[in-house]
Amino acid sequence: MMKITFLGTAGATPTKKRALPSVAIEYKGRIYLFDCGEGTQRQFLKYGLNMSKICCIFLTHAHADHVIGIAGLIRTLSINKRTDALSIYAPEGEEAKIRNLAHFDDSVVNYEVIVKPIKTGIVLKNNDLEIRAFKLNHSVLTYGYVIKEADKIRFIKEKAAAAGIKGVMFKEILKKKILQINKKRVPLGNISFLETGKKVVYATDTRPCKSAEKNAANADLLIHEATYTDALKTFAKDRKHSTAGEAAAIAKNANAKRLILFHISARYKDTKVLLEEAQKIFKNTEVANDGLEIVL
Amino acid sequence: MMKITFLGTAGATPTKKRALPSVAIEYKGRIYLFDCGEGTQRQFLKYGLNMSKICCIFLTHAHADHVIGIAGLIRTLSINKRTDALSIYAPEGEEAKIRNLAHFDDSVVNYEVIVKPIKTGIVLKNNDLEIRAFKLNHSVLTYGYVIKEADKIRFIKEKAAAAGIKGVMFKEILKKKILQINKKRVPLGNISFLETGKKVVYATDTRPCKSAEKNAANADLLIHEATYTDALKTFAKDRKHSTAGEAAAIAKNANAKRLILFHISARYKDTKVLLEEAQKIFKNTEVANDGLEIVL
Repeated sequence: MMKITFLGTAGATPTKKRALPSVAIEYKGRIYLFDCGEGTQRQFLKYGLNMSKICCIFLTHAHADHVIGIAGLIRTLSINKRTDALSIYAPEGEEAKIRNLAHFDDSVVNYEVIVKPIKTGIVLKNNDLEIRAFKLNHSVLTYGYVIKEADKIRFIKEKAAAAGIKGVMFKEILKKKILQINKKRVPLGNISFLETGKKVVYATDTRPCKSAEKNAANADLLIHEATYTDALKTFAKDRKHSTAGEAAAIAKNANAKRLILFHISARYKDTKVLLEEAQKIFKNTEVANDGLEIVL
Repeated sequence: MMKITFLGTAGATPTKKRALPSVAIEYKGRIYLFDCGEGTQRQFLKYGLNMSKICCIFLTHAHADHVIGIAGLIRTLSINKRTDALSIYAPEGEEAKIRNLAHFDDSVVNYEVIVKPIKTGIVLKNNDLEIRAFKLNHSVLTYGYVIKEADKIRFIKEKAAAAGIKGVMFKEILKKKILQINKKRVPLGNISFLETGKKVVYATDTRPCKSAEKNAANADLLIHEATYTDALKTFAKDRKHSTAGEAAAIAKNANAKRLILFHISARYKDTKVLLEEAQKIFKNTEVANDGLEIVL
């Protein structure tokens, strides 16, 4: 079960209702944090998430609104007695800037903080998740992330029983892929199926781009920025952002299952206009609000 | 009229109810900001203060919880079309650290941001206010600030009328200090009195110290940190902070008129214990809460 919490959903400037961008993905007791805008540590408190569960932070780009929160968060984690190392992934070339921030209060931080440069490709892979970076199209070097749950082999109870599989044999067939039972060969594939892991895609900040579309293919959830509506497409182009309509087209072309509009400009007090624009193109759209929680 | 708004009143870590330290003093349409913890820009929105009125920022010391907010604030002011230069005063020797933060998103900032080193003494003086820095006793170089409204000459209506002062003569006597009216010499002092300007003192983070006591002499308002209660005096000593009782003793010895306890540790959900401890020593004490507004 993957729990996605939208901690901050604002565009470049916060509002009373929207904090600066940050999304927490909790999976098997660990939180993978995507962006960390100013105030993120307080959003953890507000929405009852345990910040000590953060295992690593993935930054999309080095603009202040997406990263400033790391300095205070790192400090607070230390005051809260963290001892585990913390990895922060940032676009290659921006490490110095991010390190300055990450080590701002080094004298009070009692655990290791490691800033790691990323390129296109796999950033992290463990037994639970694979996290892959892909290039976006913004005013500075920016990466989106694909968060893919590991596929799981699920046994088909009836078929396993009919083949005589029981007890430790389940573990054995997982390892050997085939077993000999009562002189019959039982391949793993005959008694199981592959459950595809959930796929979440985080794409901000960006113009609509082929790379986002390709990487969002068949995503269970696409979180795509929609700073403006089509009425402000000129702004969107100039500032290298997307409109709600453009985000929806990406979701549609990628055959995503669900779209969340994110990184909303402070000018939209009422987001109905963004929602309606997107839903004309891609029905299963929502606008993110701070505190929105999605379980996959 | 001086309006003091407590934007953030937390100690080292924020809580649901307390943002990180920042105090805005608004005087004649300008905001003088003291410290700028993470999230300060959002606190401006929350409490309906206009951040475009900020004329300068005074930092006490370069710990993250007091300064991180400048990066986002500077950025947002630029997005909001600021053109006036912004001065940030920081303890001498910390300029590089503060400049890194202040210029984090330089490419999107369209006005001048100047980081100025301060020493003990006058930091800023204009027709309205004098702002003076004095040393505190913390784990790093830290300054408190005395904010002193300019004294004002007030005419005594009846005496001015009896001396024959009218119309432009008021301006004239203010300039010349003495006028000759109907062959009589009228000194300014005979028809006016000096109204002493209000004095506010901002002292955080610090152990109780003679310098704070001396600089807070006869203050109309003393804002003094009180991170802990006396029960945790060992913590206070180790971490170079004050207890509520110690802050109250400073207020008492300084003959201050009013004390506000500030920089409250996250452990005190209920601040009654801090208040009671302080009031035993100095009656006119309050505990700051985010959004507290005081008009002098």
